[in-house]
Amino acid sequence: MEYRIERDTMGEVQVPADKYWGAQTQRSLQNFRIGENRMPLEIVRGFAILKKAAALTNKDLGVLAADKAEIIGKVCDEILAGQLDDQFPLVVWQTGSGTQSNMNVNEVVANRAHVLLGGTLTDEKKKVHPNDDVNKSQSSNDTFPTGMHIAVYQQVVELTIPKVQKLRDTLKEKAEKFKDVVKIGRTHFMDATPLTLGMELSGYVSQLDHGLNALNNTLDHLSELALGGTAVGTGLNTPKGYAVKVAEKIAELSGLPFKTAENKFEALAAHDALVETSGALKQLAVSLMKIGNDIRMLASGPRCGIGEILIPENEPGSSIMPGKVNPTQCEALTMVCAQVIGNDMAVAVGGSNGHFELNVFKPMMAFNVLNSARLIGDACESFNDHCAIGIEPNHQAIQNNLENSLMLVTALNTHIGYENAAKIAKKAHKEGTTLREAALSLGLLTNEQFDEWVDPSKMIGSL
Amino acid sequence: MEYRIERDTMGEVQVPADKYWGAQTQRSLQNFRIGENRMPLEIVRGFAILKKAAALTNKDLGVLAADKAEIIGKVCDEILAGQLDDQFPLVVWQTGSGTQSNMNVNEVVANRAHVLLGGTLTDEKKKVHPNDDVNKSQSSNDTFPTGMHIAVYQQVVELTIPKVQKLRDTLKEKAEKFKDVVKIGRTHFMDATPLTLGMELSGYVSQLDHGLNALNNTLDHLSELALGGTAVGTGLNTPKGYAVKVAEKIAELSGLPFKTAENKFEALAAHDALVETSGALKQLAVSLMKIGNDIRMLASGPRCGIGEILIPENEPGSSIMPGKVNPTQCEALTMVCAQVIGNDMAVAVGGSNGHFELNVFKPMMAFNVLNSARLIGDACESFNDHCAIGIEPNHQAIQNNLENSLMLVTALNTHIGYENAAKIAKKAHKEGTTLREAALSLGLLTNEQFDEWVDPSKMIGSL
Amino acid sequence: MEYRIERDTMGEVQVPADKYWGAQTQRSLQNFRIGENRMPLEIVRGFAILKKAAALTNKDLGVLAADKAEIIGKVCDEILAGQLDDQFPLVVWQTGSGTQSNMNVNEVVANRAHVLLGGTLTDEKKKVHPNDDVNKSQSSNDTFPTGMHIAVYQQVVELTIPKVQKLRDTLKEKAEKFKDVVKIGRTHFMDATPLTLGMELSGYVSQLDHGLNALNNTLDHLSELALGGTAVGTGLNTPKGYAVKVAEKIAELSGLPFKTAENKFEALAAHDALVETSGALKQLAVSLMKIGNDIRMLASGPRCGIGEILIPENEPGSSIMPGKVNPTQCEALTMVCAQVIGNDMAVAVGGSNGHFELNVFKPMMAFNVLNSARLIGDACESFNDHCAIGIEPNHQAIQNNLENSLMLVTALNTHIGYENAAKIAKKAHKEGTTLREAALSLGLLTNEQFDEWVDPSKMIGSL
Amino acid sequence: MEYRIERDTMGEVQVPADKYWGAQTQRSLQNFRIGENRMPLEIVRGFAILKKAAALTNKDLGVLAADKAEIIGKVCDEILAGQLDDQFPLVVWQTGSGTQSNMNVNEVVANRAHVLLGGTLTDEKKKVHPNDDVNKSQSSNDTFPTGMHIAVYQQVVELTIPKVQKLRDTLKEKAEKFKDVVKIGRTHFMDATPLTLGMELSGYVSQLDHGLNALNNTLDHLSELALGGTAVGTGLNTPKGYAVKVAEKIAELSGLPFKTAENKFEALAAHDALVETSGALKQLAVSLMKIGNDIRMLASGPRCGIGEILIPENEPGSSIMPGKVNPTQCEALTMVCAQVIGNDMAVAVGGSNGHFELNVFKPMMAFNVLNSARLIGDACESFNDHCAIGIEPNHQAIQNNLENSLMLVTALNTHIGYENAAKIAKKAHKEGTTLREAALSLGLLTNEQFDEWVDPSKMIGSL
Repeated sequence: MEYRIERDTMGEVQVPADKYWGAQTQRSLQNFRIGENRMPLEIVRGFAILKKAAALTNKDLGVLAADKAEIIGKVCDEILAGQLDDQFPLVVWQTGSGTQSNMNVNEVVANRAHVLLGGTLTDEKKKVHPNDDVNKSQSSNDTFPTGMHIAVYQQVVELTIPKVQKLRDTLKEKAEKFKDVVKIGRTHFMDATPLTLGMELSGYVSQLDHGLNALNNTLDHLSELALGGTAVGTGLNTPKGYAVKVAEKIAELSGLPFKTAENKFEALAAHDALVETSGALKQLAVSLMKIGNDIRMLASGPRCGIGEILIPENEPGSSIMPGKVNPTQCEALTMVCAQVIGNDMAVAVGGSNGHFELNVFKPMMAFNVLNSARLIGDACESFNDHCAIGIEPNHQAIQNNLENSLMLVTALNTHIGYENAAKIAKKAHKEGTTLREAALSLGLLTNEQFDEWVDPSKMIGSL
Repeated sequence: MEYRIERDTMGEVQVPADKYWGAQTQRSLQNFRIGENRMPLEIVRGFAILKKAAALTNKDLGVLAADKAEIIGKVCDEILAGQLDDQFPLVVWQTGSGTQSNMNVNEVVANRAHVLLGGTLTDEKKKVHPNDDVNKSQSSNDTFPTGMHIAVYQQVVELTIPKVQKLRDTLKEKAEKFKDVVKIGRTHFMDATPLTLGMELSGYVSQLDHGLNALNNTLDHLSELALGGTAVGTGLNTPKGYAVKVAEKIAELSGLPFKTAENKFEALAAHDALVETSGALKQLAVSLMKIGNDIRMLASGPRCGIGEILIPENEPGSSIMPGKVNPTQCEALTMVCAQVIGNDMAVAVGGSNGHFELNVFKPMMAFNVLNSARLIGDACESFNDHCAIGIEPNHQAIQNNLENSLMLVTALNTHIGYENAAKIAKKAHKEGTTLREAALSLGLLTNEQFDEWVDPSKMIGSL
Repeated sequence: MEYRIERDTMGEVQVPADKYWGAQTQRSLQNFRIGENRMPLEIVRGFAILKKAAALTNKDLGVLAADKAEIIGKVCDEILAGQLDDQFPLVVWQTGSGTQSNMNVNEVVANRAHVLLGGTLTDEKKKVHPNDDVNKSQSSNDTFPTGMHIAVYQQVVELTIPKVQKLRDTLKEKAEKFKDVVKIGRTHFMDATPLTLGMELSGYVSQLDHGLNALNNTLDHLSELALGGTAVGTGLNTPKGYAVKVAEKIAELSGLPFKTAENKFEALAAHDALVETSGALKQLAVSLMKIGNDIRMLASGPRCGIGEILIPENEPGSSIMPGKVNPTQCEALTMVCAQVIGNDMAVAVGGSNGHFELNVFKPMMAFNVLNSARLIGDACESFNDHCAIGIEPNHQAIQNNLENSLMLVTALNTHIGYENAAKIAKKAHKEGTTLREAALSLGLLTNEQFDEWVDPSKMIGSL
Repeated sequence: MEYRIERDTMGEVQVPADKYWGAQTQRSLQNFRIGENRMPLEIVRGFAILKKAAALTNKDLGVLAADKAEIIGKVCDEILAGQLDDQFPLVVWQTGSGTQSNMNVNEVVANRAHVLLGGTLTDEKKKVHPNDDVNKSQSSNDTFPTGMHIAVYQQVVELTIPKVQKLRDTLKEKAEKFKDVVKIGRTHFMDATPLTLGMELSGYVSQLDHGLNALNNTLDHLSELALGGTAVGTGLNTPKGYAVKVAEKIAELSGLPFKTAENKFEALAAHDALVETSGALKQLAVSLMKIGNDIRMLASGPRCGIGEILIPENEPGSSIMPGKVNPTQCEALTMVCAQVIGNDMAVAVGGSNGHFELNVFKPMMAFNVLNSARLIGDACESFNDHCAIGIEPNHQAIQNNLENSLMLVTALNTHIGYENAAKIAKKAHKEGTTLREAALSLGLLTNEQFDEWVDPSKMIGSL
């Protein structure tokens, strides 16, 4: 590989000749060889929005030349278009303020701008300076939390919510469609009184509605931006009016309702907004774990399980055993849920460990919340497209279970009295027969009366 | 001990002669000798409200005699007044539907009612029946989640929120009071640019404001009551209109805005509302961990720590070492935070493990959320009363740190140039002197100029 | 209530006249009104052992008068006998070093000793001094971790391990007993090739064996005692040889292999031994969650579930529906598992937050590990006594499932060829018939051949 | 992109023409578009070892032709050499049994073998069959857990342990080197009696020794391999003696002490071995969090913190503020610790959710444990190389703190009496002077006596 020499206050560093980054990025690469988790590109894009917004605001407030603001914005647009993705090599496990990723962006924007303006990377002096220009009116301490709020907010509203909603809508449609499919209910995993398959599915819809509502409730906190607080939250070195204006600019560029944080000291020193969003994602994980488990158990069988629903066969089952459709989408979904529950704990530990004016678990926290938001969304979409949309009742199995069930005897109480009904149930249970067989054998009613009186569709309530 | 004989469908059971509970409670006592955590009395009181509301609604809807409704309500009032606390001996670690605690309440209400009506506990037949009367139009499956929602909602609004608010208000007052006390800032646990003590405290206020807001956001979900769903959510065996009316009655009796859950299937099978509230309590725990840690570190010393604030001395320090004030309230507070973070995980595990029409981790989930709500509230109040209200700046230490700090040199840049300023800082750092000493020794400015130019109060921004 | 006046360096305090505790205990009571979790009596008993051991060692090393050592030991024996349980009213949520509980013990021992020696609680001067005598050669900082190691070690070896072992032995016996009961296997919750019920249960036995082994592995770390480290680990103010001797004395008094910690600085500043033991308890919780879930699912039904095993009926099921045996012991067990997983997280958070020479999350950590050890043990015993010992195969259901299953067709491959076997399976699946019916209808083999060739008992391997 | 057509029982699939994988891999790619976490290459390598071992064992037991075994082994060697890394594109979030990754390996080995034997990918019939040959005597259900045990075991012994040991050795060396550097101790974050810097560091060494011991304790469980259990643990379709022999072969090929699991039913249905290893990694995370926090707090300052140690400056600090060395390695380390604590929770949730004969959270569990093992190792090495090796005492700061400290007055008790000593301490505290100043001003001793009597080096105990 060819290198060029970059310098900072500690001396010279070799940087790959074809990369835009500079000395500080390179030092981080060398000093933090930990794992393989790259700083998420969503964060890099969040930075691109904020760097552009800062440049424009600095220009408007008279502290940055118009041509510099323009070229900075241009490079940011390139980043947003994904044209510079290979310029951000740093890992999550770096300084806890994310300073090195902020500098990575500053260096890439400055050097790329210099090249766009006709310079070359080996020029001694660059036309745009990473600190004085690109980082103007900023500090790592306020840019990183701003970048992570932008990234998480976008991910949640553009990926997570629509994909969860998609699954919710499918389940809603199925609930409607199967609203008259009467089936046995189960409590304590034991046979109970009946309900309809639609009712059962409607519970999942309600869970997801509540979960989406909880997630939406966290967006307001997430919309608060630290930018303008600079090093410790006081806004040292920012022009008057900067914090409000730069947040408005970010809102404009992103099309999302960002605003300046009312309290910048919290915004640098604590990331409770991420804790809050992570908590809502965990709630969705808890709901989806229930849903994924129920679906796989309802589809279990084909002969020796519950088997009341059929789900799509996406991969070859056993070549010899037709009907062995593994609930693989349920499995991917519930694995994701376990991960999101774990991520939430990592976020809590990081969030609780801030000190004084700075929380230095920022990259780890952002990484986990972005990961959770992505996984929940993607898993819901995959589960929707490859499982939920194909859920169908197994009418035969549903009917068999209903007829077999002993608890339908409840319906006879008002006709032949509690004691006679109990006799029927006990006999059927003891002898392993159906209620009908037991009833007829006891001579307590006729076949026709059984048909008329023991009707599960009359037991599903009036809700 | 003396016993009387109680009977159920499995036969006879010996019950302590002076207790109101019956056979099912007694069986649970014998079958679940696990740990020592009693079913929280808050849940029992929640049950008392719902049993009274159910009785009144049943009467209004014509399915329960007025005199029975009245006497049931009377016993519920006794429970609410704390007069029957020793009648609820069951532990949390029982059936996961809480059926046994529902039956405990049913049995106690029925037997106590019978006694109030002039009967004795050994009467063969009681005037009020635990199932047919007290549990009328109910099932364990909808009463227990209703009882836990009532209990948690009350705990949160009557205990947690006011106590957190109390601490928040004290910190707000302190933030106001110390808004001009300029002190060194710290990022990465390292000296940074200055801010005021008031600003530092305002960050905590903002954290608690956001946390209270997040907690309030969960109340709507919590206000939804399962009652009326009965066994599987269909509302089997309830009179028409019951669910809505009984929720209104509970709202009336409790003075809190309860309403019937829109979807009863979710309300029995999932307890995401508890997951949600637990998540908000965890967020507060994360915030309070930061606050407790900061306070103890700011108060550290008295000589070899940071020592910038003074906190009340509540217990004798070392008899020989004056000034050793251990930050014991910070310690209790942060221990509580760790517990609440753990409780939240238990709640998530329980919440994710519901099956079909019923989640059977109910008592465990309610126990943890109630515990977290109580601990967060009590710890905030204790920390407030015995620590926060007495926080005072240690002006001498604050001043020494400010003067010692090297980063104030930043202020000289505009007067003597960056390079000269750097010379001063480097000399001071190397020789271990103050900036003033280094500056004077280098002859770069006068003592008066130093006083004029190096003024931390001008470095605290315009926020 | 009547009071007497106690004094400490901060002045006078009113103490209930009939209590042995003194001023520092009383101040803690007043300053920490947080929740209701009392300092576990196991810890108090651990303290009693260590106080007695310290007194005897101090006497042996010539720094405590023999009569004082004797009377201190006598009071400690009273504590161990449970005679003074009402003298330890403090809560867990106090100072994080547990100093106040150490002082509670010191005060109670001193005052009770004084009374035993003929004095009265209102005497100005006591014959035994809480600090100078009872706490001699000790500090809260080394006594509390010692007390908690004693308590946890005892709980684990005297309660947890035997009770888990009891369940393990029952399952082992059942595995042996049902080793020839061939049944369908299930992977992905779907029908799979057969195994025996004994094999299935043997997996649980193996899990518990591994879990017990893991728990045993943690005992060595737990056997290390901090005592002798005093305030910061240096052993200041202890006589020569004290640390080793006092640990030997504790080992002698407790009958357990305690030893002095090799490194006292770790022993005060970190409680990784508790983290380690908690981790092993969590592993058992994970195993037991699997076991509890499997048992309830295998017992599900009675008609519309899997129903391959029968479990004891401990409480009346529904009066109308015979056979509805709720798996309540599984529910208590799995709720306990969720709690222990949460407790483990609280312990991790506390363990990670020590600072310098002292971890101040001690009471919270000890409380959780003791709770987990207790809950795992008790729940295993309850599950054993009221569920596991009664597990029986439901031979009819097992047979039906085996015969119904389509995957037995695999056995025909070698007789009639893969393609013909597949034809049979597909026909059976499509038409909802048995393999036998499909095979006979296709004329591919005779009824006798089916009996001979399709024999699940030949498919259960040679393991 | 060019494609070729592959077929399975569900029909045709387009596969990229230049890839060795087949239809089942391709279907998984299309059906599981969830997140970006690839199946770790460590797992793929574990599979390569086991596929080679299985081929050789099958050959030895006479069920696979020698030439097929040889060519399978050859491809496995290529995988182990990293030559086929781009052939394993599947994500973690697939079927929970890892079947699709097993098939990915089977398909790649078979097709690559075919090509090595002179065939082309578009040949209708391949010389080596993915199922019949490569997967012979295996099932996904026993190969995946085997692959993950091999991968985790290797990662732990080859990466984690050596890297943690490296840090441990550095700290041990530093503890030795600084064993006479007397400094102030701190308990409750407050000044306490002195110890040496070496003692302080020795606590960390002891923590890591205990942590490594705990991690080593988990290896035995991890060395048990599921291979030979096939579909449900019975070993159906394996030749006699296979399980034991194939484990021996894996031990031979890997150079690690693998053995066949005593109970194959556990080995497929539960992954408590991963839970156990994850727990030990979490314990190390808890220890390292303490160490990382202590180091950053001891190095805090340079002027307004504790500043008793100096750590290497790896990146430019502020250009204007010399001495601002951010503890970035502490930050990366503690972020890793938070992540590992979260990962452990995900593993626990997955581990607790197995059903019957199969746990279907395998890929997620393996992914997290591998990630934790890697992160702990890498972070320790990075922290070692870039921070720990450069730790030096700041003698001046240490001396100042010691001299300033009030608790040294303890040493005067035996010379001038407790009351006089207390007078000195109180005066010094009140007036903000040193003990020496207060003592001399009170005329209670001479300057020379102070020097002789107040000697912290005599207060550090005899441990």
